[in-house]
Amino acid sequence: MTAGELLRELRERRPLIHQITNYVVMNETANATLALGALPVMAHAIEEVEEMASVAGALVLNIGTLSKHWIDSMLLAGKAANAAGAPVVLDPVGVGATRLRTETAKRILDEVDVAVVRGNAAETASLAGVEAEIRGVESIGAAAEGAELARKAARTLGVVASVTGPTDFVSDGQRTLAVSNGDPLLGTVSGTGCMSSARTGCFVAVAPPLEGAAFALAVFGVAGDDAARDAKGPGTFHANLYDALYNLEPPTLDRRARINEA
Amino acid sequence: MTAGELLRELRERRPLIHQITNYVVMNETANATLALGALPVMAHAIEEVEEMASVAGALVLNIGTLSKHWIDSMLLAGKAANAAGAPVVLDPVGVGATRLRTETAKRILDEVDVAVVRGNAAETASLAGVEAEIRGVESIGAAAEGAELARKAARTLGVVASVTGPTDFVSDGQRTLAVSNGDPLLGTVSGTGCMSSARTGCFVAVAPPLEGAAFALAVFGVAGDDAARDAKGPGTFHANLYDALYNLEPPTLDRRARINEA
Amino acid sequence: MTAGELLRELRERRPLIHQITNYVVMNETANATLALGALPVMAHAIEEVEEMASVAGALVLNIGTLSKHWIDSMLLAGKAANAAGAPVVLDPVGVGATRLRTETAKRILDEVDVAVVRGNAAETASLAGVEAEIRGVESIGAAAEGAELARKAARTLGVVASVTGPTDFVSDGQRTLAVSNGDPLLGTVSGTGCMSSARTGCFVAVAPPLEGAAFALAVFGVAGDDAARDAKGPGTFHANLYDALYNLEPPTLDRRARINEA
Repeated sequence: MTAGELLRELRERRPLIHQITNYVVMNETANATLALGALPVMAHAIEEVEEMASVAGALVLNIGTLSKHWIDSMLLAGKAANAAGAPVVLDPVGVGATRLRTETAKRILDEVDVAVVRGNAAETASLAGVEAEIRGVESIGAAAEGAELARKAARTLGVVASVTGPTDFVSDGQRTLAVSNGDPLLGTVSGTGCMSSARTGCFVAVAPPLEGAAFALAVFGVAGDDAARDAKGPGTFHANLYDALYNLEPPTLDRRARINEA
Repeated sequence: MTAGELLRELRERRPLIHQITNYVVMNETANATLALGALPVMAHAIEEVEEMASVAGALVLNIGTLSKHWIDSMLLAGKAANAAGAPVVLDPVGVGATRLRTETAKRILDEVDVAVVRGNAAETASLAGVEAEIRGVESIGAAAEGAELARKAARTLGVVASVTGPTDFVSDGQRTLAVSNGDPLLGTVSGTGCMSSARTGCFVAVAPPLEGAAFALAVFGVAGDDAARDAKGPGTFHANLYDALYNLEPPTLDRRARINEA
Repeated sequence: MTAGELLRELRERRPLIHQITNYVVMNETANATLALGALPVMAHAIEEVEEMASVAGALVLNIGTLSKHWIDSMLLAGKAANAAGAPVVLDPVGVGATRLRTETAKRILDEVDVAVVRGNAAETASLAGVEAEIRGVESIGAAAEGAELARKAARTLGVVASVTGPTDFVSDGQRTLAVSNGDPLLGTVSGTGCMSSARTGCFVAVAPPLEGAAFALAVFGVAGDDAARDAKGPGTFHANLYDALYNLEPPTLDRRARINEA
């Protein structure tokens, strides 16, 4: 199926995307999910995450603002999603910056069957054991060897690695796709990485992980291009982004998505 | 008093609206409260909720992202508001979707004197014991028998039931009002239901529950119509919504509010 | 150095600003930090705050939505920032409104070496022991004696006091600066005070506290003027604000900043 066909299917099936994510971006990822056509639900209480994850089309775990009981909930939800056959997306925000983040991301990868890890180059490199410097969650390492990094991370971690940057690289260890849509303004709004992960959750709910992850980034890139058109800066760009996701037509997506083998 | 007269009074008195709400919409409900003319305050610590609720004009409890100590705080705050004579609004987000949400909503209704329950049809049906399917917090059940549902929920729960949907129904068990303002774009922004509850809090701080709840929905509907005019999608609509609330003039509200006996 | 020169330096150095702030404004302060040119990071877990604060250019503590373990984290992070030589900014949101807020703000001031306290007149008066009435976090006391209040608070608390209002006053107890940029629409968006504190964190990361605090308010005032130009209300103003921060040129800032000795 093409990206456009999957977008159409997503809007028809409206999968429920359970997100245990950080405080900074909850509203943004909920709105990005809804604008795309899926249904967001946030729930983090230990008493309800298993129930919620069991009925979801996908589960997104994001470690941007951790605390102890949230970690417990992520693990429980992850296992429940696995048991129910719902794919799990992990966004390892700021991994490498503190021991807690590194240990938590690794623990999730150990205890939960994660379908896709969506991070920037520095985060992915840190998780996969490549040398990297992380300076805040907005920083992005050099992605010249992005394809190689994605491939290596996929093999090391046993997941589909979705590495975002000026060009995005998505790999299952065998096949690697490069997605080259997107506008630099995406880097000026906090949480666009987290929104990518939420959107990845939407697509892997209706498609295999490699294609789902790549299509999710292409959607965001094309929407980012549209959003940039009338934007005067990060504020108007941010508002336009939801408009663009909402208005994106499947044939337009297929015509403009720049996805290539890498 | 008319809706417009109450809006004017609200802006003069600027009641303090204490909100214990979910992480996803806190910024949105604070801004919606402020744009309307009241003063929002968020406080959830067990050590301060009673003090805060005691000086508030109304208390809004929203169970969208629960955890154990938040539930304790909601109960404490609710009792303090009751003792101080401040009306309590409950938004039972996602009730029926998990046991924790169902039990928490019921416990609040048991232990706190709730003035208004503001939910969608599926949530209200679930609380009032009518068969319903809830699929994520954005889903809305068939509201054909909305008036009957509102009436039944009001009687069963001993509250004013405010059931939002394409047409909203507000009932105290005897009298039922239908509010038919609003634009479909309201369903494309996460948290518009929660904003309705916050606004309900603003209005019941200065008006009886039935009228307050109905006027709050009419205000939102009229503002939604205004916001939709220049919107290109959910993002610009969302920004316009605060503009519209802020700019709404009492005579305009009275002229355009479509509130009828149902 | 002028405000413009510091803004240029800020954008070159891109300091990491660690923020332990309230749930309502996290997205807003992250975006305001990023739009200005610095890098935001939010982290509140007791297990990671010291590590994060140690590598940050400044730490911002905001007590807008407290709970017990967040207070512990704020104290730990504050001490780690002190040890690392990173300036600490305190935003005492709603201090005076509840005992918990008052005690927490005082405890932070006791146990942490705070460089700047950024609050409104009522909050600052309450902290400094002047009689004041606080009605919600959006209320602003009469600031006629703003300069005197700032001076007194600075001396009593041993900090730079940054008191925002129609005119802002920033004092180290000896020298007092008045900043008279800004648009009334700033008062219609929730969290603009918290954004001021975040921006203060950005500037004190690259400048001495008195100048840094004053420049941060001038930046926000000038950006507020720009944002108001095409705004139709609080919603479009809010979006424009990030655009204006992002587009603000150093020479423009120097030409338009209205900073005077008070």
